[in-house]
Amino acid sequence: MPAKGESVDADVVVAGGGVIGTAIAWRAASTGLSVTLVDPDNDADKASLVAAGMLGPVSESVFGERDLLNLNLLAIGRFPSFSEELEAATGLVTGLRTEGTLAVAYDNGDLAALQRLTEFRHGIGLAAEALDAKRCRELEPFLAPGIRGGVLVTGDLSVDNRRYLAALRTAAANAGVKRLTGTVTAVAAGPGATAARVRARLRDAPGTTELEARDVVVAAGFATSRIGGVPDKVRRAIRPVKGQLLRLRHPEHMPRVATRTIRAIVQGRDLYIVPRADGEVVVGATQEERDDRDVTAGALHDLLRDAVIALPAISELILAEASAGLRPGSQDNGPIVGRAGADDPGESLILATGHFRNGILLSAATADAVAALLTGSDPDPAWTPFRPGRLG
Amino acid sequence: MPAKGESVDADVVVAGGGVIGTAIAWRAASTGLSVTLVDPDNDADKASLVAAGMLGPVSESVFGERDLLNLNLLAIGRFPSFSEELEAATGLVTGLRTEGTLAVAYDNGDLAALQRLTEFRHGIGLAAEALDAKRCRELEPFLAPGIRGGVLVTGDLSVDNRRYLAALRTAAANAGVKRLTGTVTAVAAGPGATAARVRARLRDAPGTTELEARDVVVAAGFATSRIGGVPDKVRRAIRPVKGQLLRLRHPEHMPRVATRTIRAIVQGRDLYIVPRADGEVVVGATQEERDDRDVTAGALHDLLRDAVIALPAISELILAEASAGLRPGSQDNGPIVGRAGADDPGESLILATGHFRNGILLSAATADAVAALLTGSDPDPAWTPFRPGRLG
Repeated sequence: MPAKGESVDADVVVAGGGVIGTAIAWRAASTGLSVTLVDPDNDADKASLVAAGMLGPVSESVFGERDLLNLNLLAIGRFPSFSEELEAATGLVTGLRTEGTLAVAYDNGDLAALQRLTEFRHGIGLAAEALDAKRCRELEPFLAPGIRGGVLVTGDLSVDNRRYLAALRTAAANAGVKRLTGTVTAVAAGPGATAARVRARLRDAPGTTELEARDVVVAAGFATSRIGGVPDKVRRAIRPVKGQLLRLRHPEHMPRVATRTIRAIVQGRDLYIVPRADGEVVVGATQEERDDRDVTAGALHDLLRDAVIALPAISELILAEASAGLRPGSQDNGPIVGRAGADDPGESLILATGHFRNGILLSAATADAVAALLTGSDPDPAWTPFRPGRLG
Repeated sequence: MPAKGESVDADVVVAGGGVIGTAIAWRAASTGLSVTLVDPDNDADKASLVAAGMLGPVSESVFGERDLLNLNLLAIGRFPSFSEELEAATGLVTGLRTEGTLAVAYDNGDLAALQRLTEFRHGIGLAAEALDAKRCRELEPFLAPGIRGGVLVTGDLSVDNRRYLAALRTAAANAGVKRLTGTVTAVAAGPGATAARVRARLRDAPGTTELEARDVVVAAGFATSRIGGVPDKVRRAIRPVKGQLLRLRHPEHMPRVATRTIRAIVQGRDLYIVPRADGEVVVGATQEERDDRDVTAGALHDLLRDAVIALPAISELILAEASAGLRPGSQDNGPIVGRAGADDPGESLILATGHFRNGILLSAATADAVAALLTGSDPDPAWTPFRPGRLG
């Protein structure tokens, strides 16, 4: 195994080509590093593609998780400039939308839950404007007459996750990232000045291929738990959280059913309806502790029921796709980003996984953090609580 | 144009390769006629593939339509031997099931509707056994506890419509039917002893191809209304009736949710759940006076809601497909089968369309009727009311 400074196959090998791995590869290559990205190119496996692309720092899942909130605030602050740079580098649109989110409540219990979330937002200095039902329907005329009220969150963004990933891929390719189709099966990352070895099964090569790199970044989402050489405490910390969602589209000549992201709390169930500029509408999502990607009749029924309750005109939309993905959850619901040996700056294995429901949101900030690690500087302090070393 | 007896491209050209056209082509070829079948080979266009394959002589749509009931009785009597012959000719299974149908009622109004249907069946000498809710759940343990009661119909059959069509295609090919991929655009069928000309746009030939045949059979379903030379009164009589349905499958190791076809009347809405031997379950169907094939969120929601009400375990099944087809309805809901000039045995244009919701059921009997016309004999008298000449 060569020491650092000796010849290697690439400065960095990135395992995983979802939004996290691809954003890292692009940013790393932009700093002048040679980067090889290994990805199965099996779109059915990518949680990045089964997402709505809602970008909001506060959701039911971070209510009270202060460290994660800090990180999400860093991430949403970074996203627009990152997206702008990406569009400039590729000539592709990411579908970033800035109309904000209207959260609405179906019954009085839902309204109380919404009010608690509003107070929480106010308490941390974030905008959130409580609106009565009439005002909600002025903003979104297709909302059901029966909704009890809502909250307008002007700071939230959304992005078309599929266009965004496509743009990241193009940007990475333009920046010189070498892409290999295959699966990383194991990593061996020595301590100190030792380079990393990566074992992969590649589509276009027989047997196992071994690559050497100064650093290896494992950004394989839930599949990180299946890669040999990833520390056991990390592999154990990652769990799959299945999400099912629907992609709908408008029939010709039908007015758009929503002008901004609509979140609805329906009898305690949380639903989102995210409109795209091209007329697509994403409805999601379930959250199931399962590791299959089957679309079930029950999930489809529940999503449609709640969507039709909140926004009856959804009935008229056309089914484009129903899909399921496996979000990489972690034991504390926080991402896992940093060198595997957190106290050893020479440790050549870097992890970037566990992004759970916030993968799209955190992708830009994650790329910054990993690019910093790769070039010998420190990530933003908001990342400190999310180093792999915290895992027990 | 050659007179009969002169050289033609085929004895019979059949326009349309759904279950009707393919069954006709097979039976015609089996009598020794040379047959060319022209079909677009666009599966998305085939109502035959978007069906559940329920075979019952009585449904809500024939309640009181005596002529259609007679025809359906002829058809269901013929189906098993036809299917058996088809399986013998091809070595393929059609998925014919003989477990019958259990119709169940959700509320008291539904139960009353079911009782009327039972009395009607008894009145025409058909079996139908009224069962209380407990007995229904003994037969089908996954039925919702709340159902009010049901009726067991032992005479009903079901067939796997996709396997059935695949077997018909193989049988037709084995019998020497020549298959051309394309669309028939016009037919010109002279009276008396004149042969028919068929104009078609074929995938593998430039421009328009003209074929000459002794007889042409138009079995193009709803698309019959778009073929030039089909009498205007026939074209006007055919209307598209869109049907949306779901194909679900069982997860591994899950017991089958139904052992026979279940029809449920849920607050006046009619739903069917048709299980296949391979674990597929078809749930259908909407009935919409529309000519698009879009799967809509609203239809999906309604089907799933009613299915889950009747059979809650449906929730656990996996979505395999959601699809929509256009049934060829007619102005009086009866099929249109016979020579275009009903009083002219030499008229070389034969129609076989308008089968509406009964296309699979009527396919075998339709093939018999058209084969009779092609060979100079008379179809069963049950067909007499369904000649094209009745249309105004």
